[in-house]
Amino acid sequence: MVRPGDEFRLECRDWTDAQIGNNDSANDVRDIDLKRCHMLSGPIGIEGAEPGDLLIVDILELGPVPQQVGDAPGQGWGYTGVFAKANGGGFLTDYFPDSLKAVWDFHGQMATTRHLPGVRFTGITHPGLFGTAPSAELLERWNRREQALVDTDPDRVPPLGLTPDPEQALAGKATGSDAERIGQEGARTVPARENGGNQDIKNFTRGSRVFVPVHVKDAKLSAGDLHFSQGDGEITFCGAIEMGGYIDFHVDLIKGGMEKYGVTTNPVFMPGNVEPRYSEFMSFVGISVDHDTDTNYYMDATVAYRRACLNAVEYLKRFGYSGEQAYLLLGAAPIEGRISGIVDIPNACCSLYLPTSIFDFDVRPTAEGPKVADRGQCAVAS
Amino acid sequence: MVRPGDEFRLECRDWTDAQIGNNDSANDVRDIDLKRCHMLSGPIGIEGAEPGDLLIVDILELGPVPQQVGDAPGQGWGYTGVFAKANGGGFLTDYFPDSLKAVWDFHGQMATTRHLPGVRFTGITHPGLFGTAPSAELLERWNRREQALVDTDPDRVPPLGLTPDPEQALAGKATGSDAERIGQEGARTVPARENGGNQDIKNFTRGSRVFVPVHVKDAKLSAGDLHFSQGDGEITFCGAIEMGGYIDFHVDLIKGGMEKYGVTTNPVFMPGNVEPRYSEFMSFVGISVDHDTDTNYYMDATVAYRRACLNAVEYLKRFGYSGEQAYLLLGAAPIEGRISGIVDIPNACCSLYLPTSIFDFDVRPTAEGPKVADRGQCAVAS
Amino acid sequence: MVRPGDEFRLECRDWTDAQIGNNDSANDVRDIDLKRCHMLSGPIGIEGAEPGDLLIVDILELGPVPQQVGDAPGQGWGYTGVFAKANGGGFLTDYFPDSLKAVWDFHGQMATTRHLPGVRFTGITHPGLFGTAPSAELLERWNRREQALVDTDPDRVPPLGLTPDPEQALAGKATGSDAERIGQEGARTVPARENGGNQDIKNFTRGSRVFVPVHVKDAKLSAGDLHFSQGDGEITFCGAIEMGGYIDFHVDLIKGGMEKYGVTTNPVFMPGNVEPRYSEFMSFVGISVDHDTDTNYYMDATVAYRRACLNAVEYLKRFGYSGEQAYLLLGAAPIEGRISGIVDIPNACCSLYLPTSIFDFDVRPTAEGPKVADRGQCAVAS
Amino acid sequence: MVRPGDEFRLECRDWTDAQIGNNDSANDVRDIDLKRCHMLSGPIGIEGAEPGDLLIVDILELGPVPQQVGDAPGQGWGYTGVFAKANGGGFLTDYFPDSLKAVWDFHGQMATTRHLPGVRFTGITHPGLFGTAPSAELLERWNRREQALVDTDPDRVPPLGLTPDPEQALAGKATGSDAERIGQEGARTVPARENGGNQDIKNFTRGSRVFVPVHVKDAKLSAGDLHFSQGDGEITFCGAIEMGGYIDFHVDLIKGGMEKYGVTTNPVFMPGNVEPRYSEFMSFVGISVDHDTDTNYYMDATVAYRRACLNAVEYLKRFGYSGEQAYLLLGAAPIEGRISGIVDIPNACCSLYLPTSIFDFDVRPTAEGPKVADRGQCAVAS
Repeated sequence: MVRPGDEFRLECRDWTDAQIGNNDSANDVRDIDLKRCHMLSGPIGIEGAEPGDLLIVDILELGPVPQQVGDAPGQGWGYTGVFAKANGGGFLTDYFPDSLKAVWDFHGQMATTRHLPGVRFTGITHPGLFGTAPSAELLERWNRREQALVDTDPDRVPPLGLTPDPEQALAGKATGSDAERIGQEGARTVPARENGGNQDIKNFTRGSRVFVPVHVKDAKLSAGDLHFSQGDGEITFCGAIEMGGYIDFHVDLIKGGMEKYGVTTNPVFMPGNVEPRYSEFMSFVGISVDHDTDTNYYMDATVAYRRACLNAVEYLKRFGYSGEQAYLLLGAAPIEGRISGIVDIPNACCSLYLPTSIFDFDVRPTAEGPKVADRGQCAVAS
Repeated sequence: MVRPGDEFRLECRDWTDAQIGNNDSANDVRDIDLKRCHMLSGPIGIEGAEPGDLLIVDILELGPVPQQVGDAPGQGWGYTGVFAKANGGGFLTDYFPDSLKAVWDFHGQMATTRHLPGVRFTGITHPGLFGTAPSAELLERWNRREQALVDTDPDRVPPLGLTPDPEQALAGKATGSDAERIGQEGARTVPARENGGNQDIKNFTRGSRVFVPVHVKDAKLSAGDLHFSQGDGEITFCGAIEMGGYIDFHVDLIKGGMEKYGVTTNPVFMPGNVEPRYSEFMSFVGISVDHDTDTNYYMDATVAYRRACLNAVEYLKRFGYSGEQAYLLLGAAPIEGRISGIVDIPNACCSLYLPTSIFDFDVRPTAEGPKVADRGQCAVAS
Repeated sequence: MVRPGDEFRLECRDWTDAQIGNNDSANDVRDIDLKRCHMLSGPIGIEGAEPGDLLIVDILELGPVPQQVGDAPGQGWGYTGVFAKANGGGFLTDYFPDSLKAVWDFHGQMATTRHLPGVRFTGITHPGLFGTAPSAELLERWNRREQALVDTDPDRVPPLGLTPDPEQALAGKATGSDAERIGQEGARTVPARENGGNQDIKNFTRGSRVFVPVHVKDAKLSAGDLHFSQGDGEITFCGAIEMGGYIDFHVDLIKGGMEKYGVTTNPVFMPGNVEPRYSEFMSFVGISVDHDTDTNYYMDATVAYRRACLNAVEYLKRFGYSGEQAYLLLGAAPIEGRISGIVDIPNACCSLYLPTSIFDFDVRPTAEGPKVADRGQCAVAS
Repeated sequence: MVRPGDEFRLECRDWTDAQIGNNDSANDVRDIDLKRCHMLSGPIGIEGAEPGDLLIVDILELGPVPQQVGDAPGQGWGYTGVFAKANGGGFLTDYFPDSLKAVWDFHGQMATTRHLPGVRFTGITHPGLFGTAPSAELLERWNRREQALVDTDPDRVPPLGLTPDPEQALAGKATGSDAERIGQEGARTVPARENGGNQDIKNFTRGSRVFVPVHVKDAKLSAGDLHFSQGDGEITFCGAIEMGGYIDFHVDLIKGGMEKYGVTTNPVFMPGNVEPRYSEFMSFVGISVDHDTDTNYYMDATVAYRRACLNAVEYLKRFGYSGEQAYLLLGAAPIEGRISGIVDIPNACCSLYLPTSIFDFDVRPTAEGPKVADRGQCAVAS
C-alpha cells in the first residue's frame, strides 16, 4: 500500500522469469514455457483509490538491474526472441516460422549485439506491461468476448487468443477454492485491455505520465515486462529487448477522473521528453494488399503495417543481413510505425521509420547500390 | 519532359477542383461530386526512366498559391470536410454520418479556423497524392483485385472500393476509342498503390526524398491533392486541410534501383528535417475491441486506431468542443498515429498523440477537471 | 500604417542593394561600398502604438523573391562574403584578412554552393535586422556612447564603431535641413541596440514571435537584411547567406508591456517550431586564451568563441577544405554557438556545434583519420 | 589502469566534498572552504596512450548515487549556490553580492525545489569537470599565463584567477618534497584548459563522445563535479545542481589523433541524443552595452550575455520570483545561451532561451500582463 503523492521502486524479473540465456542458440526460445508469463511485480494498493478515479502514474526512472554482473536478463544484457509459429508466433510468423534470438549488450543507455553487427542505438526503455486490477464484472466481460473470438477458430495455430488456464496460474496468497477460481477465471496477461495491461507502447519511458482507469478499490497497480528498447508493434512478439530491472513510480489520483475527462476504456498519457532524437530516417510504406497473392483487404492497417515491415526486411537484406536478422532488428530498434492513411478505400497505408544513424554504415539508397558486407548471423534453434 | 537532375514547379488545383467554398455551411461538402476527384497535375516524363528504376523525387518546397487573394482553396485558406456516410463516409462515419466542414485561414505556415476556436498550429504541408504511371499489366492487376474485393459486398455503403468509371474520367489528349478505353480501365485515384498514389503520408513535407518505383518508360510523374496540414490517418477522409498550390520537385534516377534495393511494391522515402517540433502530447490508446458491443477483433489495428480516435474525441468534448469539431480537428492537426503493439493476441494496440501546444488553453488532465468554455461550432449541412 | 492584428508583406532588397554578383570573384566584396548599407524596408507605423508598449511582431513567413529568375541576390541564389580587414573585417580577420565569397544556390529550403562542394543544408531563414525607431533621446544616447568608444582608438582598422555619416544617408521624404540633420545624427544600422536592430539572431525564423520595445508614436517598424541561413555569430560579418526577398508580418500590441514585463532594453522573443532538426553534431570548444601567444584573458567569451571557431576551421582543413572555405561555412551553415561556462576564473568556455549531416561525407573522427578529398575553392579577390 | 575498449564506473563526491547541507540557510555556502575544491576521482591510466593521441571518452551513463537515502549531495537531492562576492562571486555578483542557495529534490531525471516553487524540469545530467593530466611543460605554461593575468590586478575581489596553493592541495600518494612541489606547482582545477578540465559544458550528457588531447603517457583521466542539471554559463558559479554520484565511461584511443584532426588545444566532442526536448522558449537578448551607465563595450560577448541574463531576471521578477530566485534558476535550469551576433560593430549580441514548460504557470507575455503569485523564497545567509 502506498499513498497518493508517494514515490517508490518496483523490482521486476524479465517477463519469462529468466528462461532465456545469454548464448548463441535459440533453443531456449523454442522450448519456452509461455504459461509462466508474464512475471509481474505487485499489486500495489493506492490508498483512497476508487472505481471511476484516474490513477496518475509517473514513470520517474527505470532501467536494468543496477549491478551489471550475473546471468539473468537485465544484468548487463537483454534478448530479443522470435517464437516459432507452433509456439506463439509473431507478426511475420508466416514468413519466419522458426525460433530466433539476438542477445544485446548494454552500454549505459545504448545497446549492441553480436547477432546484428553494425547496429548501435539508444534504447527507449519502458515497461511493456503495467495496469490496474479489473473488477469482477470487467474480468467476466474480457473472458466472454475473448472466448467468443477464440471459438470462431478454436484450432488455429497460433491461437486467436489465450483464455484462462489454471496451469501455473499465480494466485498470490490465495489458497484452496479461491486459488482454483483464480486459475479458472483469471485473464491471461498477454493483451492490452481496459486496465492498461500489456500495451507495449514504447513511449512509456522516463518522464511519462499515465492516467490509468481505476476499476477496484485501491486500484492495485502491477507492472513488469521491462524493455530496454522496442520498435513500434514489437513485431517479433518477444520483440523488445527483454530484461529484468527496476522502475520508479510516483502515483497520485484524480478523483472521479474517468467521468471528468471522458475516459471510459483505455488509459490516456503524456510521453516524457527524453526519448532519443533522430533526424534522418529510412522509411517504408505498406498498403492493405497481399502482393504475394494479389489480394486486396479493406482498410486493414494490420496488413498494411505487415507489408511495410516486409518491405523493410527486403531492403535490409540487400546490405547483407539475413531476413531473420532484419526481423529481429525491427522488433528491437526504435522504429516508428505510423498509420498514415486510413480512409482511402480500399487501401490502408502504413509507414515505418528506421533511424539511419543506428547503423555504422550508410543505409541510404545511392546510385551505386548498397554496400554488401558480411553481417554475421543471429541465434537459431538447432 | 524533364531530365534527371532537373528542378521544376507544378501548380495544382485543390483535389475537388474548387467545389468547396469559404463559408459556414457544409452543403457543398454534402453535394460534392466525387467523380471529378482527384484533380492532378502531370504527367511529367523523366528522360531515360525505365521500368525497374527508382525515381528520386525531392520535395524542395510547396505551399498554397502565392497570391493570398481570391476565392479558391489555397488562396489564403483551406478546408477540412467530413463526407456524409451516403457519399463517401470517413473513418468514424458510423459515429458522425453527416456532412461537416471547417474552413482554415493561413498565416504563413500556421493555420487557424473560426470553426475550431482556441486552436492554432503549424502545418506539415505535403502532397496527399503523387506517383508514377502503372504499366498495363499492373493496372490490370489493380482492377482485378479491387473488383474482387468490391464483389464481396457490392451494395455496401460506403462502398468497399471504387472501380473504373467512364463518367468524368480525364483522358488527357486521348480521343475516340482510346479515350473510351481509358474511362473503362483507368484506375480511380483514391487509394495508395504500387506506384505511390494517394498515400496521404503527412511526412512527405519540405526536404523529403522519395524513391518511387518506375513501371513505364519515362516514369510519368503526377501530383496533386496538396494538404496544408493533416493528422495521421487523415481520418475524416477529406480530412487534411485541402488547398490548391504549388510544389517544387527535383528528380533523379537510380537505374535498376528496384532490384538493387529490394523495392518490389511501394516507394521508400526519407522525410525532411523541418517538421514542426512538439515536445508535449496528450495521448490516447485504443485496442481492437468494440467496447460498445464488447466484440473482440483479432489483431485489428484499424479497429484499435478507431478506438484511439474515439477516445480522443470524448476527451476533447469535455473541454467544450462538439464531437464533430473534435473529429475535424483530428483529421487536420499534426497528430501522430502509431501502431504500438501488434502481437499481443488478441488485441492490437494503437496510440494517438495530440500536441498540447496547438491549444490556447491547458488541455492536460488536472485534479480540478477540464475548463469548459464555449468553443463555437463547425459548419454543418442544412 | 497598419493596425494591430494586421498581416502584411514587406519586400526587401539584399542588404548591400545588389552590389554583389553571382560569379566566381570576390572583387565585388572587396570593392563594396558599405556606406549604402543596410537597405531596409519601412518604416511601417502601427496605429495606437506608444512609447512603453511592446510591439508583437510575428514572423509568419519569409523567403527569397518568389520568382527564381534574374540576377539579383535572392533570385534563386545568395552569397556569403568575407570583408577585407581594411574594409570592415570580420570575426577572424586577423587570420583571414582578404576578401572572400561563396555563392549559394537555393533548392527550396536547402542550399548548396559550388564554392564548398560536399555541403548541403536546410536554411534557418530569418531577417538579420528589424526593429522600431528610436526616440530622439535614445538616439542621442547611442551616438554619445558609441562615439566615446570610438574615441578610445579612433584610428583602429577595422574601426571600433561607425558613427553617423551624411554620405549616402537615406533621409526618406525629408529635405533640406531636416535631411541634413538626419545625415548628421542618424545612427548607422550596423549594431543591435535597444530597438532590436541588426541582432542577427538566426532563430527569428518562421513562426517566431518577437516583442519589441516601442520608443516613438506608431512604433515605426523597419526590416531587411534577409538571410537564407546563418550560423551563430555570423562570423564572417557578411556571413549569412545574404539575399533579397519577402517577409510576412503579423503585428499586435501589449499596451504598457515594457513596464508590465520588465522589458527595459532589448526585445524578448519566442522562436518558432520549424527550425531544421539535427541530432548529431561535431563540436568544438574554445577558452579565453590566445594559444598563439599564451595570453590569458579574463572571462572573455568573445575570445573563447573565436578559439572555438579557429578549432573548427583547423578540423575542417584536415578533410581538404581551405581555411577560407571553412570560415565561409561557419558563417553560413546552421551552427550553434553556446556560452558554456562563464564563471570558472579566468577562462570563459564557449562551444560550437556543427551538424554532421550537412556534409555528404563522414566528418566524424575515426581511428583511420580523415578522408581528404579535393574540395574545390571559394571565390577570392584578384 | 584500464585498456582501450574498456567500460568502467567512477564514483564521485560532490565538488565541495559535502560541505553543503540539505537545509534552508545559505550559511554553508557563505562559509565554504573553496581550497578543498574540486574533489575529483582518478586519475585513471589508459594503457598505450601517448602524447599526441586523442582519448575517446564515451559517457555511457551517469547519475546521482543510486541509493536515495542519506544526507550527502546526490543522495536524492542536490544544491545550487551563489557565492558571496567576497568569496568567489559569480556572473552577476555585482547585482547579487550575497550568498544564496536552493536545494533540489530528484524525481528520476526530474528536479524540483522548495526554494523555487512552480518549477520542474528534466536535468541534462553531466560531469562539470573531466580531463587528462597536463605535461610538465603545459602545466608551466598555465601557471605562467595565469599568473601574468592575476598580476594585472592582484588585489581584485573576486580575484582574476587562482594560482597554485599548497594549502589543502591533494598530492595523492606523493610525499615529502614531491608533495610539496605538487602543492606549489599544481594548477587549480577551476578553469577549463587544454586538457579539458572544468569546461562546464552542459551537453556532455548520456551518450556523448569526447575526444580529449593526451599530454602524458597513459593519459591519466580524472573526473568529478557531477551536475544533475545546469544552464549554459553556469552563471551562479556554483550554479549547476551539484551532487555526488557515479559516471560510467568507455574509453578508446585514436593514435596520433591530435595531428590527424588538427586538434591542438581543446577537446572536440559529439553530444548524445537524449537531451530533453523543448519546443517553446521565452528568450532574452543582450548586447555589449552597460545600460546602467550607458557604456559601450566593443564586441564583448561576456557583457552581452550578462545583459541577457539580467533581462531574464527582470522578466521573472514580474511573476513573483525574487531576483535571487531568478538568478539561481538561470544557473540550474536547462537554458540555452547563444552567441548570436559577434561582428556587428560595436555590439556583440547574445541570446538566452528559457523553456516555458519548466513552469507550472503560463510564463508567456499576454495583453493582460503577468500573473503574479507568491513564489516563496530561496535560502539566504543569516
